[in-house]
Amino acid sequence: MAGEFDLIDWIRSNQSKSPMILTGIGDDLALLKWPANDLLLVGVDQVIDGVHFDSLVHSPEQIGRKVINRNLSDCAAMGCLPAAAVVAVALPKSVSIDYAKQLYVGLRDAADAQDCRIVGGDTATWDGKLVVSVTILGRSDGVRPVTRGGAVAGNEIYVTGPLGGSILGRHLAFEPRVALGRKLAGVATAMIDLSDGLSRDLGHICRASGVGAIIEAELVPIHPDAVELSRRDGISALEHALNDGEDYELLLTGPAGIGGVIRVGRIVSEPGIYLMENGATRPLQARGWQHEMGR
Amino acid sequence: MAGEFDLIDWIRSNQSKSPMILTGIGDDLALLKWPANDLLLVGVDQVIDGVHFDSLVHSPEQIGRKVINRNLSDCAAMGCLPAAAVVAVALPKSVSIDYAKQLYVGLRDAADAQDCRIVGGDTATWDGKLVVSVTILGRSDGVRPVTRGGAVAGNEIYVTGPLGGSILGRHLAFEPRVALGRKLAGVATAMIDLSDGLSRDLGHICRASGVGAIIEAELVPIHPDAVELSRRDGISALEHALNDGEDYELLLTGPAGIGGVIRVGRIVSEPGIYLMENGATRPLQARGWQHEMGR
Repeated sequence: MAGEFDLIDWIRSNQSKSPMILTGIGDDLALLKWPANDLLLVGVDQVIDGVHFDSLVHSPEQIGRKVINRNLSDCAAMGCLPAAAVVAVALPKSVSIDYAKQLYVGLRDAADAQDCRIVGGDTATWDGKLVVSVTILGRSDGVRPVTRGGAVAGNEIYVTGPLGGSILGRHLAFEPRVALGRKLAGVATAMIDLSDGLSRDLGHICRASGVGAIIEAELVPIHPDAVELSRRDGISALEHALNDGEDYELLLTGPAGIGGVIRVGRIVSEPGIYLMENGATRPLQARGWQHEMGR
Repeated sequence: MAGEFDLIDWIRSNQSKSPMILTGIGDDLALLKWPANDLLLVGVDQVIDGVHFDSLVHSPEQIGRKVINRNLSDCAAMGCLPAAAVVAVALPKSVSIDYAKQLYVGLRDAADAQDCRIVGGDTATWDGKLVVSVTILGRSDGVRPVTRGGAVAGNEIYVTGPLGGSILGRHLAFEPRVALGRKLAGVATAMIDLSDGLSRDLGHICRASGVGAIIEAELVPIHPDAVELSRRDGISALEHALNDGEDYELLLTGPAGIGGVIRVGRIVSEPGIYLMENGATRPLQARGWQHEMGR
């Protein structure tokens, strides 16, 4: 690929602006004026060819969108507002400058959609496959961030949408639940985004909160993709809804009666996660998605 | 490698603490209380197997140190104080959990040495080679950050140490000039760290500042490694000092008489970078290091 410096110039001239950003791409570091009353939330999430996408099938724009949206989904899970992002790209030597630009367009468009600015980056070319890593900075902006650790016995468990079968395509084209996460931040006691799968992500909440959980099978909302996948592989649609990853819906706990979300079970004081199905209760094993394409 | 969740547990229990960090590794995002009067500086830098290191030769601890120190060097170049970092690791499936731990030890020890805390991470395993990407957050802490854009005609040009031949080993075992960068922030008009090589990094300053430069060959401090490399490859030691990358010394401009640094030339108003050698002046072409191992 032609020199990385040309690409950085192009990216710089295509940056979106924000009053918080004093200097964006182009110096050793970007320079931001952080709002005085805002907590700073920060995290990193990467996508890797053959694991989170398949470069033979997915476009660079889709890949760029996915990695930004994964990070925006982490913001949603904390109830915070995305502010800025930086991007590291390990780019195969074989791709064109146009491929790199399309990747950046995907990154920028997904970020812009949530008023998040890309303020820095590092691009290198190599003999390996594409790896894109994004770090996101979010701000509390008047909301108390929701951790995984606040679930208490008696809380209900909710999800924000139907689950399962995201591998059929939704894992690349989801809408991060940022606005909904902000609304839920006032009432949720614990929250996480469903990237590893319900059974595994619920385990993260229970472990961080020191509680257990009972999921009611008939309450779990099953996505049509889970039904379609079940038809193909013979694994039940419920199993797909419980264990498939990359739904990027929110999983939360809180008092009874939260509106606009779907109740799927309840928090109990004894550790352990159980599934109640047809009147019987059995342990729900964490079988979350292992981040492998074409499993 | 055994599950990534075990590694995250281990990393969490080995985290260093800081009053600024309310929640570190273990939730969707880390939660920081940013000091009200501090500007926030942020940037990302990655290291890639076969480009910035060779996993067959270099230990995981060396690799971890290098990627943190590259980022700390960016802080040094802006005159800011490192505060926190997040790390994304694409880990080959073939490596052991112990390899991953040693990588983290390198990351953490290099960060701790500059009072910087690792507050978040993302680990995934894949069929490819090792890629480690670090995002650093720095704070101004009473200093006005130094950009690349402030050089003016009449300024002198300085470097903070001898240059060239870092490929012989220094590129992995350098000391980021954080303390020196802080001191220089009061007096430097422009600053950058020497990662791409003097001829290229000076170009970044000149372009951002809208000025030109003249380097005096006899003033350029030549590292013994550049002499040794010259002996091996027949390229002059001066050429190595001018063009090799990854010295991680600081390159700065400012008034005459700055102490503790080495003067190498001066800024002029006309664009273009020139080398003055034996009374003759010729254009200095940017031939910076192309980030390739074993070139």
